[in-house]
Amino acid sequence: MLRLTAMKMHNLLPLSRAEFVAACHPDGILLPDQGCHHYGLIVQYEDTDAGGIVYHAHYLNYAERARSAVLRAGGIHLGARLRSTGEGIIIRQVEARYHAPAQLHDQIIVVTRLEQLKRASLRLAQHIISPETGLIFARLLVEGVWVNKKYAPCRFPDDVREIITHLSVAGEDTA
Amino acid sequence: MLRLTAMKMHNLLPLSRAEFVAACHPDGILLPDQGCHHYGLIVQYEDTDAGGIVYHAHYLNYAERARSAVLRAGGIHLGARLRSTGEGIIIRQVEARYHAPAQLHDQIIVVTRLEQLKRASLRLAQHIISPETGLIFARLLVEGVWVNKKYAPCRFPDDVREIITHLSVAGEDTA
Amino acid sequence: MLRLTAMKMHNLLPLSRAEFVAACHPDGILLPDQGCHHYGLIVQYEDTDAGGIVYHAHYLNYAERARSAVLRAGGIHLGARLRSTGEGIIIRQVEARYHAPAQLHDQIIVVTRLEQLKRASLRLAQHIISPETGLIFARLLVEGVWVNKKYAPCRFPDDVREIITHLSVAGEDTA
Amino acid sequence: MLRLTAMKMHNLLPLSRAEFVAACHPDGILLPDQGCHHYGLIVQYEDTDAGGIVYHAHYLNYAERARSAVLRAGGIHLGARLRSTGEGIIIRQVEARYHAPAQLHDQIIVVTRLEQLKRASLRLAQHIISPETGLIFARLLVEGVWVNKKYAPCRFPDDVREIITHLSVAGEDTA
Repeated sequence: MLRLTAMKMHNLLPLSRAEFVAACHPDGILLPDQGCHHYGLIVQYEDTDAGGIVYHAHYLNYAERARSAVLRAGGIHLGARLRSTGEGIIIRQVEARYHAPAQLHDQIIVVTRLEQLKRASLRLAQHIISPETGLIFARLLVEGVWVNKKYAPCRFPDDVREIITHLSVAGEDTA
Repeated sequence: MLRLTAMKMHNLLPLSRAEFVAACHPDGILLPDQGCHHYGLIVQYEDTDAGGIVYHAHYLNYAERARSAVLRAGGIHLGARLRSTGEGIIIRQVEARYHAPAQLHDQIIVVTRLEQLKRASLRLAQHIISPETGLIFARLLVEGVWVNKKYAPCRFPDDVREIITHLSVAGEDTA
Repeated sequence: MLRLTAMKMHNLLPLSRAEFVAACHPDGILLPDQGCHHYGLIVQYEDTDAGGIVYHAHYLNYAERARSAVLRAGGIHLGARLRSTGEGIIIRQVEARYHAPAQLHDQIIVVTRLEQLKRASLRLAQHIISPETGLIFARLLVEGVWVNKKYAPCRFPDDVREIITHLSVAGEDTA
Repeated sequence: MLRLTAMKMHNLLPLSRAEFVAACHPDGILLPDQGCHHYGLIVQYEDTDAGGIVYHAHYLNYAERARSAVLRAGGIHLGARLRSTGEGIIIRQVEARYHAPAQLHDQIIVVTRLEQLKRASLRLAQHIISPETGLIFARLLVEGVWVNKKYAPCRFPDDVREIITHLSVAGEDTA
């Protein structure tokens, strides 16, 4: 968890209601100037457990939805590509740190940033945050690999790579 | 399934991209003139199974998200109410008919209409539809009961009842 | 829901702890003499919601696990068959009636019986029951269709059909 | 992920079918001599995604089921305790490394070992393995905290602590 500890803690000032609603666009919002992507969602009944809070594994779902939204925001439909070429992303590693429990019907923003981009893999930092207070619910570091239909790593397609680079501010070291 | 068979098949002409995006508002869109509510979402990886299509139970999740959105659209935050009073809705019965399989990253609209409203229970008709083609993926009839913290049925609060009545066109028989 | 109402209510006397544990075998237990199959499981955190009870859609998961177990009990590995031939079962219709809420870590038995078997489809009655009290949590009627890789209905393979017929007592009308 | 890298890779020789079935007992099997717990399960449809493999977040579910089974094996019913005292475990951190994808209806064994036990928290190493081949699907390091109903950390109850200590071989350093 050393890398998570060293991960920059980007403060997210509380967002306005309008900004949250805008981030609930099915593709989220790509913010190349800030080198990140915002994805808004609501905590649903299905996400909670008998402890009254979001079940810990579901934060990984929120992060995945945000990653798919990043690609859609760049015009890439992963589902169609999976069906035509069998290619897609598989997850190699996740580190998740839970800071505060989100509850039923809370508003959530997933902020996605690029930490590292290689030939066939990437590492993303994803903060799961309350837009109302800026409170961090959870932080994730996710490593994914682009694979072919036999689950073997292969080079990112150019259009996918292009979108991903918008998740960091130009000049930042992500190699 | 007689009631489902008899259920009116409301045609939904294909929606524009802008209409779909508008329905992805976290509260969906309440359309009192049409006596219904639209709730937009995207099929996520977590919703699909190894058959390549949406796992059948997840359509019930989509329908539940739409029901919670209806109440939020009326200013009612079910999660906060559950935590303060212990009251909420439990589902008594579901009838689901699957017509066509939705696939990864498909767009979805849940159209919710009121079929019957009683003192402590209601029956909703929920169509799960492709906004791009109007194709019906699934139709659900859902009966819910308003219960207190001991899961005993009790009268709908006035503000909840008020919102629900917007899900049918005035004058229609829903009693 | 007429069919559900008319469905025989098979009483299940409380089971002993040993009987419950036996039903937790990964294939469940096929009981051809009684014309049914028992599948045991425990309610997990992931199955519950903030209301403190099993989220209603998850009963459909329990029923599905039981159906897959029936076939495994007959030596049929649906996953391997799906990967080699693309064939499998899709669900056409579900009727679910919820009687009492199951809670975190409750014991569950799914009792599966055949209601109707046709060339390419079947209808199963599935009771979800407490082995400790015999209490019925939920009853489901599920219609499934055997489909090829293009999701078109096709005749049940002989080995699949053979197993399914063990889910009713010989001589009962299930046609 | 340094700790995961340093984590001992316990080889698990392939298990016999009988050993796998025994581990499918609802409480799994506590093996104090080996300082670990085995929990068996089958990959279900609901666990897979359109990529044809287990959706990455669901391995966290498998690990959670195993943890609850450990406590049941020691006579502790977490669900009942949650309802009576509001106490339970929340997850503070998870590190997951995915090695090979599990597929529909694969057999799974979750091997749980104690890495560290403190006053109110613990760290478990959980290997998710094929009993048929010994292949490692995924490895998890999970940190949990015992909390009261206000989610504040508090001392493990003695009976919970007692069970947990069986997850390491006496004399091993887990402090």
